Amino acid sequence: MPAKQAVYLGVDIGGTKVAAGLVDARGKILCKTRVPMSSRGSEADGLAAVEQAIEAAVQIKPRWRKSVCAIGISSPGPLDPRAGVIINPPNLPCWHNLHITKKLKPWRKLPIHLDNDANAAALAEAIWGAGQGYDSVFYATLGTGIGTGVIFGGRIYHGRTGSAAEGGHLSIDYHGAQCACGKMGCIEAMAAGPAVAKRAREKLLDGSAAGEKLLSLAGGNAENVTAEMVGAAWHAGDALAASILQETATLLAIWLGNIIDLLEPDVIIFGGGMGALMSEWFDYIRKRLPEWSINSRCAEIPLVRAHYGEDSGIAGAAALCLSAKNSPVRTHALSRGKKRR
Amino acid sequence: MPAKQAVYLGVDIGGTKVAAGLVDARGKILCKTRVPMSSRGSEADGLAAVEQAIEAAVQIKPRWRKSVCAIGISSPGPLDPRAGVIINPPNLPCWHNLHITKKLKPWRKLPIHLDNDANAAALAEAIWGAGQGYDSVFYATLGTGIGTGVIFGGRIYHGRTGSAAEGGHLSIDYHGAQCACGKMGCIEAMAAGPAVAKRAREKLLDGSAAGEKLLSLAGGNAENVTAEMVGAAWHAGDALAASILQETATLLAIWLGNIIDLLEPDVIIFGGGMGALMSEWFDYIRKRLPEWSINSRCAEIPLVRAHYGEDSGIAGAAALCLSAKNSPVRTHALSRGKKRR
Repeated sequence: MPAKQAVYLGVDIGGTKVAAGLVDARGKILCKTRVPMSSRGSEADGLAAVEQAIEAAVQIKPRWRKSVCAIGISSPGPLDPRAGVIINPPNLPCWHNLHITKKLKPWRKLPIHLDNDANAAALAEAIWGAGQGYDSVFYATLGTGIGTGVIFGGRIYHGRTGSAAEGGHLSIDYHGAQCACGKMGCIEAMAAGPAVAKRAREKLLDGSAAGEKLLSLAGGNAENVTAEMVGAAWHAGDALAASILQETATLLAIWLGNIIDLLEPDVIIFGGGMGALMSEWFDYIRKRLPEWSINSRCAEIPLVRAHYGEDSGIAGAAALCLSAKNSPVRTHALSRGKKRR
Repeated sequence: MPAKQAVYLGVDIGGTKVAAGLVDARGKILCKTRVPMSSRGSEADGLAAVEQAIEAAVQIKPRWRKSVCAIGISSPGPLDPRAGVIINPPNLPCWHNLHITKKLKPWRKLPIHLDNDANAAALAEAIWGAGQGYDSVFYATLGTGIGTGVIFGGRIYHGRTGSAAEGGHLSIDYHGAQCACGKMGCIEAMAAGPAVAKRAREKLLDGSAAGEKLLSLAGGNAENVTAEMVGAAWHAGDALAASILQETATLLAIWLGNIIDLLEPDVIIFGGGMGALMSEWFDYIRKRLPEWSINSRCAEIPLVRAHYGEDSGIAGAAALCLSAKNSPVRTHALSRGKKRR
């Protein structure tokens, strides 16, 4: 009897696309779709893309329409999760202080929950993914940046105004390279994809002899090197790529040592493209951790790869509905003003 | 009717003394005393000192004896707060894996709660002191080391095994000076009393012209300089002392930026001797914070000086009783096997 089972509609807003999907109460993605995001258009253009994605997701499985009991929205920050307001994300210039949870008119009868992408993905991992069964979860998504989320007892830790858990901007070297955020020595500025690619490029341009495979993947031009190429070159046995990833793993161990000394989570989860690559270095990170944590049992803390890959945004958004304080257990019709039967 | 009011017995164990006192349910210290600690003796010697301190505290106010409803113990770590076991604190060599909450025989009918000194002091500040009314509290005691505690909703945040909240060992410079803990660049190795004194000594020995008052406080010998002297010299207008404390305040701003980006607490409290000194630099720290936090509202977070001074250990220990999950609301007789009336 599918129509009686609660499903959640997860919306994953990004700078170039809006993905949306239906997710059941066990975290299974029932269907998904994506539409282009008009992030440089008007406020209404951006909202229209979101509404279009939601409608498209429901169209895939029309018989589930009446089972949708809540909508979750995962968006880049800064945003105010409690108020449901997207403040001014750099890659969503279409919106300034958009009260998105009130603006999605066709679905205004459903509860709508908002949080930032890393928090939402962390929650999905905690309740449905690699963090299941753990009380305190530290999640990091490593890609072009490093976003993190902290979950305690199945709830996102928000802090004073909802801006906590920005672990990617912990500085481990206040004399170090400047991060896009302005701080010096953030782990994001040292271990996210662009930083890894930059280190590789610099070493190749320095005339390192060891990077032949990497250079060949970049078509002979060091300037073309990406983090993905570093990963591929390492898999192909390139020594320069290996040394760069080992350096990255050491930086991540230093950073996780800080995280453990402050939070001592039950589990640490890596998501994102760089996260998947660096999860192949978990043994190395675990070996280095005791140098960088005063916790005598730091190496016992499970380091695990995220369960959700590219669907982490949809799953995360859906998870917001399940975790929300007033999460309805009843189902509501996803209708345009129609009464519930 | 004092005998009907619940009071808590707080025991503050240190390497050289055991302090104990009676504390009422509002955090008022009713009486206190201290006895020498036999930290280099046998396990029994150490326990005897604790029992002696407890008995001495109760003797001060014999009419409160029957009102004592629980005992709290604040001790240096490492320890296991859940199990009530003191593991192997460097400055308590008398004890190894001491199940202290079971070993205090004369008081075995009372609930006995154990936690580390910084966690306990943080809790006292959160429920009775400078953190009253705030949900999330970050407390740091700055002295010869930097201990920290994190309180959420009136409860100590312990992490996986009770070893969380070691914020003094967050590294902000992984190339930096080595901390006593073995890590490089811990804030403790840069901004606790000994580090401040060391920087001052080095600058004086380099022949800095600006430290005349500081040098005179040290009796003309730079080797004698302590952090207290740096504080006193600064108060007396010494320019070298001012520059050293400003540098310390900057390091603390970098560190607090990390704390805020990860935890975004509702309030930040400084305790301890160096904490009192550095609280005079709160305006400066607040001004520097936005450079070191990506939180656009970081400077709004109150930075406040601890309410409890030298009694933070007793108050902290007592607070453990109030916050404990099974905290009895009834009072119990602090008796040696006597029945309650």
